[in-house]
Amino acid sequence: MSPLTCPDAFLSPLEIEDAVTRALAEDLGRAGDLTSVATIPEGRRGRAAVVARAAGTIAGLPLVVAALRKLDPDAEIAAHARDGTAVGAATALMTIAADARALLAAERVSLNFLGHLSGIASATAEFAKRMAHTRARVTCTRKTTPGLRALEKYAVRCGGGSNHRFGLDDAILIKDNHIAVAGGIRTVLARAKAMAGHLVKIEIEVDSLDQLAEVLDAGGADVVLLDNMDPPTLRRAVAMVDGRLVTEASGGITLATAAAIAETGVDYLSTGAITHSAPSLDVALDIEA
Amino acid sequence: MSPLTCPDAFLSPLEIEDAVTRALAEDLGRAGDLTSVATIPEGRRGRAAVVARAAGTIAGLPLVVAALRKLDPDAEIAAHARDGTAVGAATALMTIAADARALLAAERVSLNFLGHLSGIASATAEFAKRMAHTRARVTCTRKTTPGLRALEKYAVRCGGGSNHRFGLDDAILIKDNHIAVAGGIRTVLARAKAMAGHLVKIEIEVDSLDQLAEVLDAGGADVVLLDNMDPPTLRRAVAMVDGRLVTEASGGITLATAAAIAETGVDYLSTGAITHSAPSLDVALDIEA
Amino acid sequence: MSPLTCPDAFLSPLEIEDAVTRALAEDLGRAGDLTSVATIPEGRRGRAAVVARAAGTIAGLPLVVAALRKLDPDAEIAAHARDGTAVGAATALMTIAADARALLAAERVSLNFLGHLSGIASATAEFAKRMAHTRARVTCTRKTTPGLRALEKYAVRCGGGSNHRFGLDDAILIKDNHIAVAGGIRTVLARAKAMAGHLVKIEIEVDSLDQLAEVLDAGGADVVLLDNMDPPTLRRAVAMVDGRLVTEASGGITLATAAAIAETGVDYLSTGAITHSAPSLDVALDIEA
Amino acid sequence: MSPLTCPDAFLSPLEIEDAVTRALAEDLGRAGDLTSVATIPEGRRGRAAVVARAAGTIAGLPLVVAALRKLDPDAEIAAHARDGTAVGAATALMTIAADARALLAAERVSLNFLGHLSGIASATAEFAKRMAHTRARVTCTRKTTPGLRALEKYAVRCGGGSNHRFGLDDAILIKDNHIAVAGGIRTVLARAKAMAGHLVKIEIEVDSLDQLAEVLDAGGADVVLLDNMDPPTLRRAVAMVDGRLVTEASGGITLATAAAIAETGVDYLSTGAITHSAPSLDVALDIEA
Amino acid sequence: MSPLTCPDAFLSPLEIEDAVTRALAEDLGRAGDLTSVATIPEGRRGRAAVVARAAGTIAGLPLVVAALRKLDPDAEIAAHARDGTAVGAATALMTIAADARALLAAERVSLNFLGHLSGIASATAEFAKRMAHTRARVTCTRKTTPGLRALEKYAVRCGGGSNHRFGLDDAILIKDNHIAVAGGIRTVLARAKAMAGHLVKIEIEVDSLDQLAEVLDAGGADVVLLDNMDPPTLRRAVAMVDGRLVTEASGGITLATAAAIAETGVDYLSTGAITHSAPSLDVALDIEA
Amino acid sequence: MSPLTCPDAFLSPLEIEDAVTRALAEDLGRAGDLTSVATIPEGRRGRAAVVARAAGTIAGLPLVVAALRKLDPDAEIAAHARDGTAVGAATALMTIAADARALLAAERVSLNFLGHLSGIASATAEFAKRMAHTRARVTCTRKTTPGLRALEKYAVRCGGGSNHRFGLDDAILIKDNHIAVAGGIRTVLARAKAMAGHLVKIEIEVDSLDQLAEVLDAGGADVVLLDNMDPPTLRRAVAMVDGRLVTEASGGITLATAAAIAETGVDYLSTGAITHSAPSLDVALDIEA
Repeated sequence: MSPLTCPDAFLSPLEIEDAVTRALAEDLGRAGDLTSVATIPEGRRGRAAVVARAAGTIAGLPLVVAALRKLDPDAEIAAHARDGTAVGAATALMTIAADARALLAAERVSLNFLGHLSGIASATAEFAKRMAHTRARVTCTRKTTPGLRALEKYAVRCGGGSNHRFGLDDAILIKDNHIAVAGGIRTVLARAKAMAGHLVKIEIEVDSLDQLAEVLDAGGADVVLLDNMDPPTLRRAVAMVDGRLVTEASGGITLATAAAIAETGVDYLSTGAITHSAPSLDVALDIEA
Repeated sequence: MSPLTCPDAFLSPLEIEDAVTRALAEDLGRAGDLTSVATIPEGRRGRAAVVARAAGTIAGLPLVVAALRKLDPDAEIAAHARDGTAVGAATALMTIAADARALLAAERVSLNFLGHLSGIASATAEFAKRMAHTRARVTCTRKTTPGLRALEKYAVRCGGGSNHRFGLDDAILIKDNHIAVAGGIRTVLARAKAMAGHLVKIEIEVDSLDQLAEVLDAGGADVVLLDNMDPPTLRRAVAMVDGRLVTEASGGITLATAAAIAETGVDYLSTGAITHSAPSLDVALDIEA
Repeated sequence: MSPLTCPDAFLSPLEIEDAVTRALAEDLGRAGDLTSVATIPEGRRGRAAVVARAAGTIAGLPLVVAALRKLDPDAEIAAHARDGTAVGAATALMTIAADARALLAAERVSLNFLGHLSGIASATAEFAKRMAHTRARVTCTRKTTPGLRALEKYAVRCGGGSNHRFGLDDAILIKDNHIAVAGGIRTVLARAKAMAGHLVKIEIEVDSLDQLAEVLDAGGADVVLLDNMDPPTLRRAVAMVDGRLVTEASGGITLATAAAIAETGVDYLSTGAITHSAPSLDVALDIEA
Repeated sequence: MSPLTCPDAFLSPLEIEDAVTRALAEDLGRAGDLTSVATIPEGRRGRAAVVARAAGTIAGLPLVVAALRKLDPDAEIAAHARDGTAVGAATALMTIAADARALLAAERVSLNFLGHLSGIASATAEFAKRMAHTRARVTCTRKTTPGLRALEKYAVRCGGGSNHRFGLDDAILIKDNHIAVAGGIRTVLARAKAMAGHLVKIEIEVDSLDQLAEVLDAGGADVVLLDNMDPPTLRRAVAMVDGRLVTEASGGITLATAAAIAETGVDYLSTGAITHSAPSLDVALDIEA
Repeated sequence: MSPLTCPDAFLSPLEIEDAVTRALAEDLGRAGDLTSVATIPEGRRGRAAVVARAAGTIAGLPLVVAALRKLDPDAEIAAHARDGTAVGAATALMTIAADARALLAAERVSLNFLGHLSGIASATAEFAKRMAHTRARVTCTRKTTPGLRALEKYAVRCGGGSNHRFGLDDAILIKDNHIAVAGGIRTVLARAKAMAGHLVKIEIEVDSLDQLAEVLDAGGADVVLLDNMDPPTLRRAVAMVDGRLVTEASGGITLATAAAIAETGVDYLSTGAITHSAPSLDVALDIEA
Repeated sequence: MSPLTCPDAFLSPLEIEDAVTRALAEDLGRAGDLTSVATIPEGRRGRAAVVARAAGTIAGLPLVVAALRKLDPDAEIAAHARDGTAVGAATALMTIAADARALLAAERVSLNFLGHLSGIASATAEFAKRMAHTRARVTCTRKTTPGLRALEKYAVRCGGGSNHRFGLDDAILIKDNHIAVAGGIRTVLARAKAMAGHLVKIEIEVDSLDQLAEVLDAGGADVVLLDNMDPPTLRRAVAMVDGRLVTEASGGITLATAAAIAETGVDYLSTGAITHSAPSLDVALDIEA
């Protein structure tokens, strides 16, 4: 487990290995880095800095290290930051000395990971900042980029967010369609309770206070997802729940509305935007000539 | 090759199979869809529509089909659009009748692909629209999400964009670092010309008109990347090139600046933003109760 | 999702495909079934029955179907049972008509899956029967065969058992070592509560009633694992908990002790033996000459 | 090739790598070891012993090493035993100093391999002991756990057993069905002889002395499998064969009957029970607080 | 098992699937068939014939079918030959009607398999013809193209040859180095006999009649490899062996020397040239305009 | 990037790892090297030399190193040559000291790679030598061994050849069928030009001077493939082209005809024979007793 990993999250060495190998294979293709071979003399050594050009929260440094080491096992790398750190614009994150062909060949893959994951961490941190004066936390969804969920959820942790379920298999989340098919809230909760293992939490989505009342009355849920409610309604919902369930507000939450929603007393705000629509953080590899 | 594929781009059945299998495995995890099994009666049939909630350009429908068919080989699917189509908000793209458990289990993976790729196609189409009155085309970069490059480049085509190289191995692109290490433009172009296969194009980046003059004088390049030049400089560059090379403007191009840059006469505008920072298009699966 | 699957559990088509492909590749090796090719005339059709020689609970039929179809896509299969069914000795589970070479080549892989998984389902059902007069349920552990966890946990469901967590990542389970390192029960529960996502349950292991009292006092746990306690101690533990936590008894539980433990009022009995030490159920392929 | 490997068997480094990577991925899932991250301070070092709680024959230590090193490449490991060693109860097999989070995360995978394979080695050694006063050896079958055949066959070697064929492709084994379809013993042996490569042995199953006589008369076989014969019949069979073929007794052999069968003079006793139904050996990781 | 497969050899559907998927992925790369998309109208149907331009023995037709079907599941294919058939120059092997883009995209992969494997089958058939008047058979070695061994050994069977071992694991072959290290023929054979499972054949290499005498005297071998002996020496060797062992002549055997060697009475002639140096058979896809 | 790699070509460490792992797995199978374990004492150290028995140009040494290190990470290897070197017969390329079992187990895989790739490099070098007095270069095709294209194209570079496209996706190559379907040269070139990205070269095949004239007149092509033309025709074609396009002669070119064709002034001669039909170079591992 890399010392550059965010200390409060598990980033598996297997995940790093797998992601970096796939990404390098994708970029090198069959013929490899034609440009480096054509223009850089063999054996030439290069020095470079990985730099955050814009301010943000960093995630992905262990993947940068892994990508470089795949192409130059003897690359020397000095890190000046670790995942989860908030940095200002124009911050050097790492200094590298390595085979120049390897350095240039690994550049784009390294930056694609670092920019993408730091973008997510930074978007998460923005949300977290807006609700820092409340007890609410921002949490992610399953609206992630296919194939990158574990890394993206890790980036959410780097940004100070909390993780919602990682897949269909690690919690039950009952939505309107399930309720409709099963024949109502009471029935669906009873079925879910009967089927769920004792280490599986049950969350149920409601879109009205009437539904919430029914959930509270039925019992069996651990978490309630309050969907698309405005702050006054959320406030009433929190009062109704009165600590018996964990509360999660969801539905079109933006940076602009986050504070007001957090102030209603809900436990979590969930948003897909921090994973599916976070712009990449501007990162670069500055090479010393 | 799926009839839902954009007619002007190749989307490999192998790529679809591989991407969809990985994404479903990621979402189903080890225990599968706990919620569907707990709440939906076995064998229940469901009907649903895949809907674009926001206006945009569609990419990814063949992946939706593949994801559904993986979990229910007998799913009946009627398509009302194909990749590359621009649609308005609230457009039904597909109608589906399938095993209800399978339908719900495939929902998120399907929408993650469709939202992500349509987001890229839509961002590309936006750029294309701004330069439709010129001869310039928008093109992508290698700033793609690791593991999804082929799909994202396909989405760029769906949005009316052109594809830059797919990896380090299918063209030579000489940047400032290569020039510096090799000892100047003339030397680096001579080396590249000598090394490149006869089906490999050579592009070189310049950031001044002096450098451009040197490139034109040296010969050997097919394409010149005009980096971070303002429109007046680009206009002068285009005049200097005078059709001898393909010209590509690059560096911080936004929707706001695209038209002005395109009007300088350059052949291509390249931007990483259409792949690395395009927000997801809002798509949903509306299930009939 | 195969109609032969146990109706109350999710068995992913991807899992079946992956497991069967690996197993067939392992058995066919590089040269394939030398014996069939050497002794069975090409194109010969064979008829066979998959038979449970001993009484037990069935799990694995969808894998039998998949293995046969991989080698003969036109195999005709009539099923007389489905996963989760308890059958007597000498019960025909399936009747098959297929290419004889394919049938013989798929035989061992089919039976290895069916025998192994039915062995687990049967061992689970045995435990379930001993505690049927109580409210307790039998549950599995992570002591599974490497590479087969999803299938083995599915077999536990087929046998009427409940599933404990599927991996290190879908619940928190605090054991003595974690408590020792973290500096005591109160500290470790506080840390876990602060770190856990809101869809992650927290279980903590105690081996004395003093520890249990501390857990109850500290709060933060959802489930308590009562380790290696005798029935009188378990009974006192259940009384102390008084419904505030889910209770799980663990440690050397056997068929002989299961009833007495279940009668103490605990919610779950967990045992690794149903996965790591269940003998294979005796199943066979009877081929009509 | 690990120095902990049984000296008389080949355990491929590729097999170890592949098995351990799959098993760790299976256990870590997408989110990794939630408990360790939540409760163990980052960078904390732990010391532990791998212990056999019950007496048995050890197999799988190189996999324990590989699993630990995957998560902590700097783990220090001192081995006190190697594969193939028979140990008493409460024997320390290894002492480990490693990152505490990595140690706990690798624990279950390590023990699952070690317990499963040592269970097979121990069951094999039990059989071997019962026939140690004879020239007969115990051998395994293809009734192995799907995906683990190479490791399980290695464990049989560790326990002092001999390996039967590893797959359908490395020997010909003619059973009753093949004989029936081909039209008799003489025909089937002639066909097999004509088709088999010169490095492929031919074994044929017989269930009566009449059939054995026919096999001996026909020629072409290297090994004869004497199926479900009682000791007196086996003794007559051995006399009839008189060293011309290798003899293998098979069919429902148990520890209780092994000695009597081995004393008939047969060369091999084969049993699926040592692989498909061996209980796991009780092994544990004792961590120093 | 494809009806186009050589009837006397096992060609696993899994092997076909795996080989074809890898090869298509290798050829399609990330962007797919740029030329077809650029020049062939979408949905256009094409007709073509797979043709052997030169005379030879065919191997690989099931892979051609699989490659086409991967890109166009609805391709209609009529076969006029099957693997193992000897054909004259300008023979149509298959007629195809399929999506024209798919047909052209699958062309090169299809022909690469067919040409390569038919080249091996044809080279084998040439050897077989030279020794048809003797009892000797030609057999292959492990000198195969990395990654294609199963297919190449299958092609040897198509050409009428016999298969030597498929890997290091399915027979023992003792060479001079093993003898030297182990301390002589008698010792090495005793060790091998003691270690080998009862379904593993033992072959030993000798390069003189003295060594052969020692092998015969020591016992324990099944096959003797007579290395680099001239015909008179081989004849004496065959006389010495007198049917007690299978004999295999090896070392620099060419088409020119094959008959003379075969006439010495040896059982097998082994040659790496039929796999590692066979020229590709000239095959083509003739498309109707 | 291995120092044994040809300095002018990119050989990806990922490609080496993947190819060597697959090949070793193929050769070791499930049971590993039975012969080494049976005959070589555990822990025995061996010394050996990798030797080119015949003269040729070397390619593949980094794969030899990788194969050895996979089985013995502590193998000591001293290289006396690197890829791209032309050597005489009986040249020692490497000296190795390693675990004797590992050395023998890795032998065949190492030599299969080295012999195959050096065979291609040597065949390429032969062609290059015949045209060394001209400006023409030899180039390869896509007629490569399935699964080994990247390595084979690398071997062509080692032999002094140039690389044609690596797949269907990195250039457009318009052949007669495309022309026919699209409706003539002018149309097909216009379509291709409109569709191709700006870093994709366009090559078109012509088989007559009339067609060539049409290509020159139409514009849009970068390279013209002159198919099956005799030297006088080629000479006229070169004159017609007059430097406006790159010229490539193709079709049945042999070592005997290479010089005459190269002397016509064409830029490239392409031949599939250097990849699909090059005999393996004779290489061996000489082990010190």
